[in-house]
Amino acid sequence: MIAAKSYAAQTATSDLAPWDFDRREVGPHDVQFDIMYCGVCHSDLHQIKNDWFPGIFPMVPGHEIVGKVVAVGEHVTKFKVGDLAGTGCMVDSCRTCENCQDGLEQYCLKGNVGTYNSYERDGKTPTYGGYSNTIVVNEDFVLHISDKLSLPAVAPLLCAGITTYSPLRHWNVGPGHKLAVLGLGGLGHMAVKFGVAFGAEVTVLSTSPAKEADAKKLGAHKFVVTTDKEQVRAVKGSFDFIIDTVSAQHDFRFYLSLLRRDGVHIVVGLPSEAIQFPAFGVVNGRKSIAGSSIGGIAETQEMLDYCAEHNIVSDIELIDIKDITASYDRMLRGDVRYRFVIDMATL
Amino acid sequence: MIAAKSYAAQTATSDLAPWDFDRREVGPHDVQFDIMYCGVCHSDLHQIKNDWFPGIFPMVPGHEIVGKVVAVGEHVTKFKVGDLAGTGCMVDSCRTCENCQDGLEQYCLKGNVGTYNSYERDGKTPTYGGYSNTIVVNEDFVLHISDKLSLPAVAPLLCAGITTYSPLRHWNVGPGHKLAVLGLGGLGHMAVKFGVAFGAEVTVLSTSPAKEADAKKLGAHKFVVTTDKEQVRAVKGSFDFIIDTVSAQHDFRFYLSLLRRDGVHIVVGLPSEAIQFPAFGVVNGRKSIAGSSIGGIAETQEMLDYCAEHNIVSDIELIDIKDITASYDRMLRGDVRYRFVIDMATL
Repeated sequence: MIAAKSYAAQTATSDLAPWDFDRREVGPHDVQFDIMYCGVCHSDLHQIKNDWFPGIFPMVPGHEIVGKVVAVGEHVTKFKVGDLAGTGCMVDSCRTCENCQDGLEQYCLKGNVGTYNSYERDGKTPTYGGYSNTIVVNEDFVLHISDKLSLPAVAPLLCAGITTYSPLRHWNVGPGHKLAVLGLGGLGHMAVKFGVAFGAEVTVLSTSPAKEADAKKLGAHKFVVTTDKEQVRAVKGSFDFIIDTVSAQHDFRFYLSLLRRDGVHIVVGLPSEAIQFPAFGVVNGRKSIAGSSIGGIAETQEMLDYCAEHNIVSDIELIDIKDITASYDRMLRGDVRYRFVIDMATL
Repeated sequence: MIAAKSYAAQTATSDLAPWDFDRREVGPHDVQFDIMYCGVCHSDLHQIKNDWFPGIFPMVPGHEIVGKVVAVGEHVTKFKVGDLAGTGCMVDSCRTCENCQDGLEQYCLKGNVGTYNSYERDGKTPTYGGYSNTIVVNEDFVLHISDKLSLPAVAPLLCAGITTYSPLRHWNVGPGHKLAVLGLGGLGHMAVKFGVAFGAEVTVLSTSPAKEADAKKLGAHKFVVTTDKEQVRAVKGSFDFIIDTVSAQHDFRFYLSLLRRDGVHIVVGLPSEAIQFPAFGVVNGRKSIAGSSIGGIAETQEMLDYCAEHNIVSDIELIDIKDITASYDRMLRGDVRYRFVIDMATL
């Protein structure tokens, strides 16, 4: 076994704290890479707090992981020692179901293996995430990372990036489209960058006028304060797409009213409360509320390559792992531009 | 003015009863046709009871109207006296907005003029529907009716027919698709007929095992009793589309679980209660909940022509207008196969 260090939650009510554990040996198809940076996703906090479902404890969160390969199994062909490498939200899937065969492992019908708070395909070995010094992953779930980009700023692409890239690609968002971005956090700021890069007219919707300068700096063409009746009236029925990154309860009826005919409200945030809206909200104007979850491995690599080519990274604040709990508090207050990334050298 | 007879509700708490009123004179672009048959839509009852919004009273319901032309205005080119004619849910729209220009008058941005419980474009003249002996409609909102089909059985095509035809066409439902029909009433039985005609594999979902024989008779390939766990397990994650004609509250989370990846749950019924489901329900599997409202005039004509060519009509029970209130009661109990149509000769 490989001795690993981490920050883990021992229970759903305990703070993260140092924890030593073992990773599996590097199997014939595995890559081991030492973790240099790991992004802090809102879902890390949801999961250690059992917000969505009872978690598997001890839990080592983290699924925006980048680092450098230190060992490869004998049958590994895609990586060699010294390569940059990354892993996102999944470390395995059944590989045989229709969705896996289609390259959409995130929708694996048997349930993909999450990078943490999940079990390996044996159904009993827990997975441990990226708030750790090293990780062992089957090579098919390891991504190539370009050395052209700032490495810590690449980490959030593995979740925040692909979660917004994938639906914008799936729905062919591009020139001629008006895209609204709801929520200007880790996911939202990436949605702005991709929406702009793909040629859409991007509007950030926010309750906070203070965010306008930031939104514009990120490339957004327009900014609408959703508590301002005049500003709202001007955009009623105007958006082709809303990409909704908000994970708190919000008013879907209102946002549906901002869509034009055939508009799609794409949910990528995961509020704990039910989505609610009147049937009229979608029937009038043939609108849709759709969901999307991260992206497949092939598309994640495509996204990383696109980012390298177009010089797109996340805007981050690098933190010391001992500040993780304080950083969660700041994240909950929206006090982060736009993603905390842990410098794993501080572990 | 033209003296007209009808059955009308004087208030939201009164039963329908005979009422005489005036229709406008036949204008240069108007067609007057005597109503021979009018279908009874669930929404008639919703509207006279103010279930959706405060209605305009006295209210003459009815928007599945067929009859014979008795007068045409001097500029009318599409109809002549003696032609069969029909009118559905709309009698006018702004004609200039983007949606009207696209032939989707049902989504008119200024609000189309409903056949009843609405105001003409002057904003003050109430419209009165098809539970009446005659009607005057601008020729652009009058449909040609084939003489090849049973005329009373054509009437429900004007609402129940187009409401199901249009979304099935919009989402290109056809060979290779598994379509589930939810609710086997006026809309649902038409969805079965169109789904089968378009080449999809059609499954009727119902709580009532007693409906299986009827579903099969209508052409459905499969039937699933949704209270039977074994039957439900067999279709989990299997449907490409659900067309949902139910206008009572129901469990969207459950039905989303029956969709396969990228599946679309199309809402055409209008429950008064909010649609509710967890975000996971659409995020897992990139599913959508979409809405659709009737169809544009051009598409309604296309649907009528398609029905004439493929010998598709509604299954109806012809009633005397004096039995309308009793028929509403039976409709509420689901005791109609599958649409009541009023024989207007009984007025």
